[in-house]
Amino acid sequence: MEESVFTKIIKGEIPAYKVYEDDKVIAFLDNAPLNRGHTLLVPKLQEDYIFDLDDDTYSYLWATARKLAKPLRQATGAKRVGVIVEGFLVPHTHIHLVPIDNDQQLKHGSRNHDVADEEFIEVSSQIKQAIKGG
Amino acid sequence: MEESVFTKIIKGEIPAYKVYEDDKVIAFLDNAPLNRGHTLLVPKLQEDYIFDLDDDTYSYLWATARKLAKPLRQATGAKRVGVIVEGFLVPHTHIHLVPIDNDQQLKHGSRNHDVADEEFIEVSSQIKQAIKGG
Repeated sequence: MEESVFTKIIKGEIPAYKVYEDDKVIAFLDNAPLNRGHTLLVPKLQEDYIFDLDDDTYSYLWATARKLAKPLRQATGAKRVGVIVEGFLVPHTHIHLVPIDNDQQLKHGSRNHDVADEEFIEVSSQIKQAIKGG
Repeated sequence: MEESVFTKIIKGEIPAYKVYEDDKVIAFLDNAPLNRGHTLLVPKLQEDYIFDLDDDTYSYLWATARKLAKPLRQATGAKRVGVIVEGFLVPHTHIHLVPIDNDQQLKHGSRNHDVADEEFIEVSSQIKQAIKGG
């Protein structure tokens, strides 16, 4: 199986603004965010379709999504964290966790491709700080 | 707490095209679908924000999402089932399960408000059949 771009991020072959990592999952900022703090949560196991994951990985992934939701809100000040799982572009399961304040911000497609490095650095640092604090 | 429209559906006070129900959750067709077979999965417990659910309900909800994904694909012929959790419009946790074939069909907002009753009846019946068969 060819390595996905996410496996390359996991291996450190491609850089990413990581906010969380453990032995089973990794989370990093989406490089074309729908909103500030838009994070991708990815199992280290390279499986294309989320519903094909084994039970343990599937449960752990959703438990981790919940664990990250609170610091994501704290770091961004958003009202809640929205969720999208779509997955046609990268064949490696990923959950979009998107801090949102209203029902217009989760539209998959209205992504910002022009975010400055400084903003990624700032928000990833704020999220990591909130994860530590929580 | 005021009863949500979903609690009213659960109680049978408002009609819906149900596709699945057990003691903890209910699933029914979204009345303004993003795509054919677009289903809402709702815990019977009326909690606004998904990440505020208790552990058991949260885990059960995601386990049920996976359980429904296969029959949803079978019934619609879609390539996969996409997921959205947003929740600003109805203050009662709900997971959007949307059969999709490409990365354009999950755009929250491009919803079809003019689906005929006959189509809802047909697709809900196909999904229920697929759940039984699976």
